[in-house]
Amino acid sequence: MTGGRAGRRGGGRAARQAARLAAHVEGVPYLRRTTTAFEVLSEEGLSLIEDTADTILERVGIDFREAPDALDLLRAAGADVDGERVRFPRGLARHLVRATAPAAFTQVARNPDRSVLFGGAATIFAPAYGSPFVHDLDRGRRYGTIEDFRNFVKLAYASPWIHHSGGTVCEPVDLPVHTRHYDMVYAHVRWSDKPFMGSVTHPQRARDTVEMARIVFGASFLEQNTVLFSLINANSPLVWDATMLGAARAYAEANQAVMMTPFVLAGAMSPATVAGTCAQTLAEALAGMAYVQLVRPGAPVVLGSFASSMSMQSGAPTFGMPEPALVLYTMAALARRVGVPFRSGGALTASKIPDAQAAYESANTMQPTMLAGVNFVLHAAGWLEGGLAMGYEKLVLDADQLGMWHAFAKGVDLSPNGRALDAFLTNEPGTHFLGHPHTLANVETAFYRSPLADDSSFEQWEEEGSLDAAQRANAHWKRMLSEYEPPPLDDALDEELREWIERQKASFPGADG
Amino acid sequence: MTGGRAGRRGGGRAARQAARLAAHVEGVPYLRRTTTAFEVLSEEGLSLIEDTADTILERVGIDFREAPDALDLLRAAGADVDGERVRFPRGLARHLVRATAPAAFTQVARNPDRSVLFGGAATIFAPAYGSPFVHDLDRGRRYGTIEDFRNFVKLAYASPWIHHSGGTVCEPVDLPVHTRHYDMVYAHVRWSDKPFMGSVTHPQRARDTVEMARIVFGASFLEQNTVLFSLINANSPLVWDATMLGAARAYAEANQAVMMTPFVLAGAMSPATVAGTCAQTLAEALAGMAYVQLVRPGAPVVLGSFASSMSMQSGAPTFGMPEPALVLYTMAALARRVGVPFRSGGALTASKIPDAQAAYESANTMQPTMLAGVNFVLHAAGWLEGGLAMGYEKLVLDADQLGMWHAFAKGVDLSPNGRALDAFLTNEPGTHFLGHPHTLANVETAFYRSPLADDSSFEQWEEEGSLDAAQRANAHWKRMLSEYEPPPLDDALDEELREWIERQKASFPGADG
Repeated sequence: MTGGRAGRRGGGRAARQAARLAAHVEGVPYLRRTTTAFEVLSEEGLSLIEDTADTILERVGIDFREAPDALDLLRAAGADVDGERVRFPRGLARHLVRATAPAAFTQVARNPDRSVLFGGAATIFAPAYGSPFVHDLDRGRRYGTIEDFRNFVKLAYASPWIHHSGGTVCEPVDLPVHTRHYDMVYAHVRWSDKPFMGSVTHPQRARDTVEMARIVFGASFLEQNTVLFSLINANSPLVWDATMLGAARAYAEANQAVMMTPFVLAGAMSPATVAGTCAQTLAEALAGMAYVQLVRPGAPVVLGSFASSMSMQSGAPTFGMPEPALVLYTMAALARRVGVPFRSGGALTASKIPDAQAAYESANTMQPTMLAGVNFVLHAAGWLEGGLAMGYEKLVLDADQLGMWHAFAKGVDLSPNGRALDAFLTNEPGTHFLGHPHTLANVETAFYRSPLADDSSFEQWEEEGSLDAAQRANAHWKRMLSEYEPPPLDDALDEELREWIERQKASFPGADG
Repeated sequence: MTGGRAGRRGGGRAARQAARLAAHVEGVPYLRRTTTAFEVLSEEGLSLIEDTADTILERVGIDFREAPDALDLLRAAGADVDGERVRFPRGLARHLVRATAPAAFTQVARNPDRSVLFGGAATIFAPAYGSPFVHDLDRGRRYGTIEDFRNFVKLAYASPWIHHSGGTVCEPVDLPVHTRHYDMVYAHVRWSDKPFMGSVTHPQRARDTVEMARIVFGASFLEQNTVLFSLINANSPLVWDATMLGAARAYAEANQAVMMTPFVLAGAMSPATVAGTCAQTLAEALAGMAYVQLVRPGAPVVLGSFASSMSMQSGAPTFGMPEPALVLYTMAALARRVGVPFRSGGALTASKIPDAQAAYESANTMQPTMLAGVNFVLHAAGWLEGGLAMGYEKLVLDADQLGMWHAFAKGVDLSPNGRALDAFLTNEPGTHFLGHPHTLANVETAFYRSPLADDSSFEQWEEEGSLDAAQRANAHWKRMLSEYEPPPLDDALDEELREWIERQKASFPGADG
């Protein structure tokens, strides 16, 4: 059952691994799905949830807190504003979104070959986002630093399967809170040429990000093109707050993309049911996207959904569970009916380490992510501990999984070569295909090659140290970092950007640079 | 992001685990899927593969080796027999199957409440099958024994999510080859009351299994009902051999069910393409099932498919990869078009240990298994090392995943309670739902409860020993075995069975009992 060992190359494990890595160098700017989405509800079922969302918007309403501009815009568009509570006549929020929000858009990368398409059959993978801690096998779990941040930007750049540089790939806790956004955005520009995300922790930081993007891309180019994409979270249940709305406004005014994402722990931040969680998520997202379209009609928006289930024993969030998978499938279908790109999913887990729990939960989230047809996958690699930690080993293990999805997306080749009829007609029953010309002609491309999965014999595996997947991943990310070469960046541009950042930092009271 | 800790029960980890276990006691005899199957090919694409299979059957043919009865039956049915090579006029094999094979059937269990339905929306989970080795964290990897065999039967019995006792849950290598089938079948009858599989390693052993089933169920009951289900593997490419055909005949003559399963390492035992592998699998399965229908028209058959991809570096089989997932989706659709139940998938992995690789690969096989609509899932729990080892920790980790599939199969509840409109109408924006009556009313059933996933805080996890999932699973299977209670078995029946076995064993030359 372990099969033959034909075709083994000389040179031992290291050489084999190098050969596998080499086979991976060619990436694509984003993945194109070739299958139709898996549906868990009928049109009637989806309509029932939409009806519930409409009732929430009409009768309960959404709070837009400390955001007088939002109240003014929404009132003028026909909403019923009572204090900070905004109620939408049935269908209004959806109408405002559908009237002007683009069904698809491109985020231009510093290297235009890496620009990504949001919408339709495109799927974009980005690393995990927002963790204060980082984890690796050597040093365990600790607070993230700007060095970790740069390392994760470099690893995402070096992976052919991660399309997007992401945003807060970890919190650089060693840097001052009020200026670290400069260093984060700079790191994405300097150490990668893939598209990236902007700061959202304060409206001014969003404006700073736009300013840096103007330096990198040119002010007039930015006005015409989406070069930034940023994560705006609702404060569920049914609240959008001033910080997030202010950041959203800063980006939308500059025609830059935002994803309006209800971030829900079901049972606490939404009802403890799938349909209830979906209805609330849809209501919140529609209200948030309507606001963005009123700020600047036609500004690119993404409907986001992040839903975890709750341990009813401890109240802690749980990941990779069946109920959030049902939410994901349902929300993807609801987003298609709104007509905007959809963000959800990722390699989510509650596990503290890259063990079997982490892998089961990550795969059980990535499967619905892909089969539901998600357009932007934040947290596609690296996520540990419910998002509290970014893992080095987890990042490369997850990236390997993303490579597999690229192979899956090729679909079934039905060409004469794919059906292999000539091979059958020239091969006797009982004779293996190993040495057949058809096999030799397909050998390089037939199957996905994992650089991390061990398929050797038990004896060979034992001889090589009985390593588990996390230990192999440890060697892998170190090799990736040691082989990392930065993408070219114009010296004058780099200097201009750095000088601008220094001036900004110097303007803060007590700034230490 | 780790959420609140409301609702935590007293008594520490052990009490919490006990409570979680208690919540799991209620099983169901089999799972009923509520979603339509995910499709990777159009009707036209499936037809192209069927056309290729027809051409293989017509022009290449299938060898039925050392099986003169098969050659006679197939010749009489209109096939072209040349030596041991059987060529089928286009459509003949499919016609022979469709004419008499049942679309669905029930395998009756010793406890009729545990009888399982094959076909339609039913999915049956069975443990892994056929490994010479076993693995656990304490003793590592070693040859399996009858004690291991009994332990796995007991664990599968104790799991509410494993519906079927399986067959050769591991090879009891400590018992003589020619008589160990008696001990295996007896263990399934004695230590479980779930349905089980029969011996196939020799036609006489199949007849022995039928004889034992006659003792257990009664001869006339057996004639009218399917109480045995057995795995018949093709010898791919394009060969059925005498041992397997003889076993299939023994079962079919007694009206007992067989699954005719091409077991393929793509690139060696089939061409290195998805469509080619599917065409061959379909051709082999149709030929095998046609034979069974000629032996006894109407005998229950299952179309089986087991396909792994091959490492093009080492020639070793690889699992959890994207190409076998495409084969699985395609074969499930092809089996639906034949109109017989379908077997495929499982918690497959090449990993030697229950690590992240094992979990990614298992989940990446179980997801297509479930979304494709597989009816019988052999290897649903326990599989390690490409099937060479059965793992104690892996078994309970996989069984937990099977529990999640039961929750997924409930689908989205669209009732008023599911949509939670009353909850929204009585809860202010910004107010958590934790203490809301709707949450309290749903708390027990809202989300799947994993007995193995850790969702505690990092600090608590560290305090409890920083255990990984495999270590928690180690404690879990030991607790399950210590709490195991055998199902009732009539003493007279037990004695009759044991005496019969002793007589059979004594009849072997040099028998030691």
